[in-house]
Amino acid sequence: MKSLHKYLPILTWGAEYSRQTLVNDLVVACIVTVMLIPQSLAYALLAGLPPQVGLYASMAPLLLYAVFGTSRALAVGPVAVASLMTAAAAGQVATQGTPEYLGAAVALAMISGLLLLAMGLLRLGFLANFLSHPVISGFITASAIQIAVGQFAPVLGIHAHGESFVAIVQSMVPNLGAINPYTAGIGLTSLAFLFWVRRGLKPLLLKLGLGERIADILAKVGPVAAIAVTTAAVWGFGLSEHGVKIVGTVPQGLPELTLPSFEMGLWAKLLVPALLISIVGYVESISVALTLAAKRRQRVDPDQELIALGMSNFGSAVSGGFPVTGGFSRSVVNFDAGAETPAAGAFTAIGIALATLFLTPLLYFLPNATLAATIIVAVLSLVNLGAIKDTWRYSRADGAAMVATIILTLIAGVEAGLIAGVGLSIFLHLYQTSKPHVAVVGQIPGTMSFRNVARHDVVTDPEILSLRVDESLYFPNARFLEELVNESVAASPAILHVILECPAVNTIDSSALESLEAINNRLWDGGVTLHLSEVKGPVMDRLKRSHFLEQLSGKVHLSHFDAVSSIKPDLTRRTLEAPRAS
Amino acid sequence: MKSLHKYLPILTWGAEYSRQTLVNDLVVACIVTVMLIPQSLAYALLAGLPPQVGLYASMAPLLLYAVFGTSRALAVGPVAVASLMTAAAAGQVATQGTPEYLGAAVALAMISGLLLLAMGLLRLGFLANFLSHPVISGFITASAIQIAVGQFAPVLGIHAHGESFVAIVQSMVPNLGAINPYTAGIGLTSLAFLFWVRRGLKPLLLKLGLGERIADILAKVGPVAAIAVTTAAVWGFGLSEHGVKIVGTVPQGLPELTLPSFEMGLWAKLLVPALLISIVGYVESISVALTLAAKRRQRVDPDQELIALGMSNFGSAVSGGFPVTGGFSRSVVNFDAGAETPAAGAFTAIGIALATLFLTPLLYFLPNATLAATIIVAVLSLVNLGAIKDTWRYSRADGAAMVATIILTLIAGVEAGLIAGVGLSIFLHLYQTSKPHVAVVGQIPGTMSFRNVARHDVVTDPEILSLRVDESLYFPNARFLEELVNESVAASPAILHVILECPAVNTIDSSALESLEAINNRLWDGGVTLHLSEVKGPVMDRLKRSHFLEQLSGKVHLSHFDAVSSIKPDLTRRTLEAPRAS
Repeated sequence: MKSLHKYLPILTWGAEYSRQTLVNDLVVACIVTVMLIPQSLAYALLAGLPPQVGLYASMAPLLLYAVFGTSRALAVGPVAVASLMTAAAAGQVATQGTPEYLGAAVALAMISGLLLLAMGLLRLGFLANFLSHPVISGFITASAIQIAVGQFAPVLGIHAHGESFVAIVQSMVPNLGAINPYTAGIGLTSLAFLFWVRRGLKPLLLKLGLGERIADILAKVGPVAAIAVTTAAVWGFGLSEHGVKIVGTVPQGLPELTLPSFEMGLWAKLLVPALLISIVGYVESISVALTLAAKRRQRVDPDQELIALGMSNFGSAVSGGFPVTGGFSRSVVNFDAGAETPAAGAFTAIGIALATLFLTPLLYFLPNATLAATIIVAVLSLVNLGAIKDTWRYSRADGAAMVATIILTLIAGVEAGLIAGVGLSIFLHLYQTSKPHVAVVGQIPGTMSFRNVARHDVVTDPEILSLRVDESLYFPNARFLEELVNESVAASPAILHVILECPAVNTIDSSALESLEAINNRLWDGGVTLHLSEVKGPVMDRLKRSHFLEQLSGKVHLSHFDAVSSIKPDLTRRTLEAPRAS
Repeated sequence: MKSLHKYLPILTWGAEYSRQTLVNDLVVACIVTVMLIPQSLAYALLAGLPPQVGLYASMAPLLLYAVFGTSRALAVGPVAVASLMTAAAAGQVATQGTPEYLGAAVALAMISGLLLLAMGLLRLGFLANFLSHPVISGFITASAIQIAVGQFAPVLGIHAHGESFVAIVQSMVPNLGAINPYTAGIGLTSLAFLFWVRRGLKPLLLKLGLGERIADILAKVGPVAAIAVTTAAVWGFGLSEHGVKIVGTVPQGLPELTLPSFEMGLWAKLLVPALLISIVGYVESISVALTLAAKRRQRVDPDQELIALGMSNFGSAVSGGFPVTGGFSRSVVNFDAGAETPAAGAFTAIGIALATLFLTPLLYFLPNATLAATIIVAVLSLVNLGAIKDTWRYSRADGAAMVATIILTLIAGVEAGLIAGVGLSIFLHLYQTSKPHVAVVGQIPGTMSFRNVARHDVVTDPEILSLRVDESLYFPNARFLEELVNESVAASPAILHVILECPAVNTIDSSALESLEAINNRLWDGGVTLHLSEVKGPVMDRLKRSHFLEQLSGKVHLSHFDAVSSIKPDLTRRTLEAPRAS
């Protein structure tokens, strides 16, 4: 029963659902629906899909998230970066506009849904950690730049194509002479208006006396005005006959339940892109969910979120939609408008369904240029070039990973850029942990403490090499210690004892154990004894399961003072009795 | 000048070279030459190459290692596992027996040499760490099993082929009816004799009054007796006319200087195999070198070893050889025989050259079955199934990585097995570090110390959540803390302060910094203050380069006691004055 509540959060909040909450959620749903209709159409176009696919992706996913999701305010649906990634992946297996292309997008949602579900059920959410912050941040900045530049083509009424920023720019430049003046007029005006809505509308509304929250929401749904005015203009002046591309016929009616293609060859080709879409989507979604939940001290279960996003994508696929995830701006609107339960999302789905049933004829004359303008304004807020400087200043390695991800994404496209970024950050991580901090230590006069000889005035003995290891020992750094000990002992023929002080060693894996055994045997061959000191309890428990402690030529001592005293009792006693260094 | 000595170790030991050392090294060279001739032929056959290629690979590489190597006793040349990997890689681009196949093997040595050189010059030796001990150990066990089983085909005089253990067994079984009785007689007798040499010869020689060292060396070169007797038998009884396969004509004369094919397509296909051969070879070689160096407290420079192995492989390639590395058994013989400088290796190269010039006619009737038997006996000592049990008992994750590597290598072949093993161990490593140990801590009465509430009788306050983080914070575990804090704070509405105690945090990377910023902002939104305590100096220095400390809602305290006292001075004072718990 508890497990049923865990997997179906709707049972928990549904039980407490009241009439007041219902009214609240219905109001929220109206606002979000108005915002979501143009977004759904725009992201479908960005993904290279017919407009109704965007609407389909905004129904079933919202209903399923309401059943399985643990965030009270997250709004799922098509988002910019996932739409771009869908276009890149589907474009590799089919040509835009063909049924195969649509089939690939639907299959991506299906595979993505199954992967997310599996990750949730198998508790593999940590996979998202493979995307380090510099990589995801660089990737989103580069994707947003690519989207924004690409959408200037429909804004200007010219042709462009390509799978990377560089390819898109190359394909656009020769067409710049063929700008359609009507389209460009609509597109650039919409763009200017939308920028003003984003920057200037809220202050204006506040000045007019509206409340902070209502002003915020109006500013967010403001783009609808651009949609309405430009649609009316195209209709009124017959601009579609002058080359202004319009949305055209959007099939009326709800999506039919269908199954995507299960062809193995197609799935094999889409597996990696689907995994990347899933993880990028999950990382953004969980971050939004945690941020909004914290404001009301609500709980978000990361594993259950994977299941909920998995079900949402599954729902999108079987209703003819494409990959979805929790979107930042729509979730914030949802939250600010006062969404109290995921039911608000379910009502939004109903709102979109009603729109699909009755309002699509109104969208016939909606110019693509306006939709493209809404995309440009939305994605430019994702570009964060300042993060490069901050990250570089904080960590060269992280800064390098971020810059490499941005450059590779712009040159080689989203998949190559993201995979290279992930590989690079894992590589840099292993590189950095491959050289742990190890200090030679000596006794501080007047105390039983041992400190770094390089930083403190300490007493050492030429026959004893005391090394403090400041890191867990595992395969990325296992050989480092072997080489360090070989080097140190070969350099000082007087050494008869090596003591490893291990207070910061949280783990010793099999590779490090093998290295310790090799160090012990080699030292023994060279007439040197190996000792350990201050080994943590769990590490000691594990060492007892190996043969190492039997083979160890020296002993394991509780404290480093004990270890040195067991070899040179006079020295440590004299040092302890010496006046303490200032 | 110092740098010249670093890159050319021969300048250091060469300057001290004496007549006594010369005599010593010459004796060693004779012993190793006798041992190396059959090994070179055998490993060439294992790699699917003409026998003389094995001899070529045992000349130039030894000369170059003598110039560039830092180990006094390492003996380079063809080895079993690298030969198997060469056969697997060359077999993917050409058919055995063709000039293209030989060309691929030579190109592998060239690419491998350049990669090792680059790794040495760019100090990328840590790349070898990517091969965790369980993976390399499992890989070598599986390779040795595959080699041993594969070599039963020439021992029995039947046909077999395949790139994995499973494929080889499948191809052998139908041919078991076609065993050649003469070949099998020679092969199985050699095998029995060689096993006896390994087990029984040394005790016998000791019983006969020989010294320990000389008995050891005779036991190691004993296989030469099998070569001599079986060659004589084939010649005397004309067995080659009864289907016993023989080495046949080995071209007399030294190899000519040649350059391998530089065709880009070929290099692209061989790049990954060459990288794997290089790293596996380096890991084995450096381990042997360190072990032997330790016995005489000599220094081995890992980066220079990469350069020396790189030059050796380069030398092998330009003299028509295949990939080489430092071999375990020949290095031990070299060491036990008393090699004092790498000059012993150079003299061995001259010995092999003399043999190639004058002795090859004697090898005409040498049966392949005998060579295969020497390979079987040599590689069976590499099989270490006991390591599976030990590793599993020590660490489930490492044991799983080892078993997976063995199974995948046996089923899918050496490359797939090794790559999967490396991927798996990196994955398991990141998985394990993704869930760091974090303890809720409270004050021990009568002290200023804070300990885990689960293990000690401590005083806590419902308004304060004290978490001690026992691990560095970086991208594999960054989100863990976000989720843990969200969970804890949502579960206890009384909490007004969260204090992270960071004595074991050695690093905070950009991803973790982003998580801390998110935690800080989210807690602030929920009316909770975030504090840090016991932040290490280097970590603090780096945090000062970010905006985090300005944004932090609470403070950074020197000790955890200070942190709690700043919020609840009465509580900590009262607890400090309380009687200390027993």
